[in-house]
Amino acid sequence: MEDIVKKIEINCDMGEGFGRWKMGPDEELMKYVDVANIACGFHAGDPSIMVKSVRLAKAHGVKAGAHPGLQDLFGFGRRRMTVDPADMYAMVLYQVGALKAILDAEGVPLNHIKPHGELFFYMQRDLKICRAVLEACALFKVPIYGAKGSADEKAICEELGLPFIEEAYVDVAYDKNAKIMPIGQFKTITTEEIYTKTLLIGRTDHSIDVDGDKVHLGFGGKPFSICLHSDMPTALENVKQLRKAVDELNAEKFPTAS
Amino acid sequence: MEDIVKKIEINCDMGEGFGRWKMGPDEELMKYVDVANIACGFHAGDPSIMVKSVRLAKAHGVKAGAHPGLQDLFGFGRRRMTVDPADMYAMVLYQVGALKAILDAEGVPLNHIKPHGELFFYMQRDLKICRAVLEACALFKVPIYGAKGSADEKAICEELGLPFIEEAYVDVAYDKNAKIMPIGQFKTITTEEIYTKTLLIGRTDHSIDVDGDKVHLGFGGKPFSICLHSDMPTALENVKQLRKAVDELNAEKFPTAS
Amino acid sequence: MEDIVKKIEINCDMGEGFGRWKMGPDEELMKYVDVANIACGFHAGDPSIMVKSVRLAKAHGVKAGAHPGLQDLFGFGRRRMTVDPADMYAMVLYQVGALKAILDAEGVPLNHIKPHGELFFYMQRDLKICRAVLEACALFKVPIYGAKGSADEKAICEELGLPFIEEAYVDVAYDKNAKIMPIGQFKTITTEEIYTKTLLIGRTDHSIDVDGDKVHLGFGGKPFSICLHSDMPTALENVKQLRKAVDELNAEKFPTAS
Amino acid sequence: MEDIVKKIEINCDMGEGFGRWKMGPDEELMKYVDVANIACGFHAGDPSIMVKSVRLAKAHGVKAGAHPGLQDLFGFGRRRMTVDPADMYAMVLYQVGALKAILDAEGVPLNHIKPHGELFFYMQRDLKICRAVLEACALFKVPIYGAKGSADEKAICEELGLPFIEEAYVDVAYDKNAKIMPIGQFKTITTEEIYTKTLLIGRTDHSIDVDGDKVHLGFGGKPFSICLHSDMPTALENVKQLRKAVDELNAEKFPTAS
Repeated sequence: MEDIVKKIEINCDMGEGFGRWKMGPDEELMKYVDVANIACGFHAGDPSIMVKSVRLAKAHGVKAGAHPGLQDLFGFGRRRMTVDPADMYAMVLYQVGALKAILDAEGVPLNHIKPHGELFFYMQRDLKICRAVLEACALFKVPIYGAKGSADEKAICEELGLPFIEEAYVDVAYDKNAKIMPIGQFKTITTEEIYTKTLLIGRTDHSIDVDGDKVHLGFGGKPFSICLHSDMPTALENVKQLRKAVDELNAEKFPTAS
Repeated sequence: MEDIVKKIEINCDMGEGFGRWKMGPDEELMKYVDVANIACGFHAGDPSIMVKSVRLAKAHGVKAGAHPGLQDLFGFGRRRMTVDPADMYAMVLYQVGALKAILDAEGVPLNHIKPHGELFFYMQRDLKICRAVLEACALFKVPIYGAKGSADEKAICEELGLPFIEEAYVDVAYDKNAKIMPIGQFKTITTEEIYTKTLLIGRTDHSIDVDGDKVHLGFGGKPFSICLHSDMPTALENVKQLRKAVDELNAEKFPTAS
Repeated sequence: MEDIVKKIEINCDMGEGFGRWKMGPDEELMKYVDVANIACGFHAGDPSIMVKSVRLAKAHGVKAGAHPGLQDLFGFGRRRMTVDPADMYAMVLYQVGALKAILDAEGVPLNHIKPHGELFFYMQRDLKICRAVLEACALFKVPIYGAKGSADEKAICEELGLPFIEEAYVDVAYDKNAKIMPIGQFKTITTEEIYTKTLLIGRTDHSIDVDGDKVHLGFGGKPFSICLHSDMPTALENVKQLRKAVDELNAEKFPTAS
Repeated sequence: MEDIVKKIEINCDMGEGFGRWKMGPDEELMKYVDVANIACGFHAGDPSIMVKSVRLAKAHGVKAGAHPGLQDLFGFGRRRMTVDPADMYAMVLYQVGALKAILDAEGVPLNHIKPHGELFFYMQRDLKICRAVLEACALFKVPIYGAKGSADEKAICEELGLPFIEEAYVDVAYDKNAKIMPIGQFKTITTEEIYTKTLLIGRTDHSIDVDGDKVHLGFGGKPFSICLHSDMPTALENVKQLRKAVDELNAEKFPTAS
């Protein structure tokens, strides 16, 4: 993993509007993040928003990856639906290929692929879907980003030669098994907590779970990627504190990385 | 042009179903054509149909190109709509990029791009749209197929280094200016006429227009591409006669081309 | 039930095209059926097809009902997806309301509502969805058509004052519990079998299941509705034999019904 | 007209989100308006948002009408597209019928129909489209709201027995012919101007045009409907000043109207 993520970085979902509708404050957030996960038109986003997002990332020197999802604009890709694995394979090729062309036109490399919302969870539950998604991703030869995935997911990534980059989270709560908890099941995390938790993770490889207990994350002293949620009301304040903490950690631990 | 089309070829729109709905008899037609124009999901087609169409083309040694259209499944991309040129540029990148990834996954090269239906006509009427479409196409460095286009279209193609391949038609009528007439404004063309017209074009560079007069096409003795319409009720009979005539012409005129 | 279905009738799904795409041979089938279930634009159909279908039904004296489905054009409403019950309620009101306006404009009464495909199965599995759908249907005060439903479904129908019309099937197979089997799990049923099975059901209240054994259906000598599938390749031959059998049965058993 | 609008009223477009995306601050605005124009799912809105909007209107005693648009979520119903008049007729029946069912379920009457965005302009340019829309509206026997329409539109409304309610505008500029100007072609109108212009219109039947000259509106002392735009950044401040002015005017001029 250290070959890919060279210092602690912040990634963030971007381009999740549709037509005239907006989701997060992308223009502001882009100033503070290292990596943008760009929606590809199935759960959110449209071709024009994709072009704008890629140009915005490029202007800020932010790396850009694909954020493909289920074909569900109404449900923002968060509803369960049964998809035939062959359809799923085709839908991921389609979405990432569409973004790839837009990146190519701007001379920006595809940094990674991060399955969105229910597509991520579907991959954890269903081995055929997991394989279908990853086989489509394999064409692009880029790392897969995501929460701690299943053993199956890791095995398929390894078989296909795809690095898997596990993310840390600081704006949502971990349970005692270091799994992310759904929004609504924990108290809103303050910007101060985001700052202190980030330092804690970077220095001790532990965070504080929803019950206040220490929880081990397992990055083993290597740099990692932190996922910031762009659709929270406090996203902009959150990212500023997160940026501050990440910059302090990188100066401490990875001073020579660029 | 002779560098690209080496002998007379047949191209045909393919993959124009959606979900469970079918349009033409693709499986049968694929046996008789040289080049498939594959719908990219905006006027017709979906990711799974695109994968199936690419595999079908590959299995028959048929070249595959992109057939992008306006975002109009209900109107099959045949209705006029005003599109911002920046949106149009993004939509063409998106569609062709999506197909390109599917082709790459199958190891099939992108042969060409052929704008569909109203998108073709929009490009003839509106210089900004014409430029937007062609600038998106320029990323892919492949020839543009189409009916005789405007002088502007040719100039932009030249500027961008995109070869323009003008098609001949034998299953619809030409007016006296060698422009295609809309379906409904001429008598259905019989399969016998398709056979004889194809030979006529190949041997004399002329066809017979709707009034029975000779009309000059201007291929100048070079090989060209003939567009067969796959959604006519007699498409399968048409393509068989067309194949026969094209094979005879190629044996006569381009016996050494492969 | 005898108040609603006065003699044995044939119902059939209609209007399941979309834009330029067609599904069954509606114009031909409409001559042979008593009741049309008209798709409402979510799994298939569009406003114009709905208007055409209503006019076609009216021209043939065929009763017209609503055939709402899940919002899934790509999957033809046959894929499982998780829908919030409040969303489901709104989607059924929306679809049936849309058809109701079209019927009103043509002076044709809404005969019934028949949930389509996966929406029917979802109602059997999920009590909240079942209630949401039926509470939306309750606004229209018309019978619900469908395969033998769950006890819960019947109880909610009763509570809401909605008659439930259970259908018989002759072009697909029953298992030994008189449940419909999925297509692909039984041999295609011939038109002769359709004729003889229909007479058998009408005369004995039994059919022959997939194993060749007698299976009791429980219509108790009262008239019932037979669902014909319009998307089978032999649909037109099927409906002709079915019409013949139904006419014979009605002459025998319900000679005075109109 | 005085039979329908009994005192000066404020109408406002509502329910113009889609899925998880929001447009205006509906919950806040609903406290200050008299009439809501509810999007019907074609240019914006979805069945669930329609249900929520109707319930919100009902809770605040706000009248609810249908706001049908072109089938163009991406372009928010503001792009020109060619629609067959028969399709347009069906699409308006479909949208208004869908809302009508939702209103019926909540026991709220359909107050009016107001064509949205480009659909309004299309009706002004194209007589067949104008007739198609109004013939669909005629089923519902409610007034049509809109900007000053064409003479043709008024004639068809009269022929079909549909009252036409012409709106006044105070948050966008009039040109010297009392036609609304596109956003971007005039300076943003302050909340103070909204207050004073509203009083001016109510008291003198004149407003101030973009050049500072008086412009006659022609309400002739009768009550009228003022359209507030909900998607402006200052919409909430605007509506508060507008409400204040309208309440003052109604106390002055229509003290006994309820």
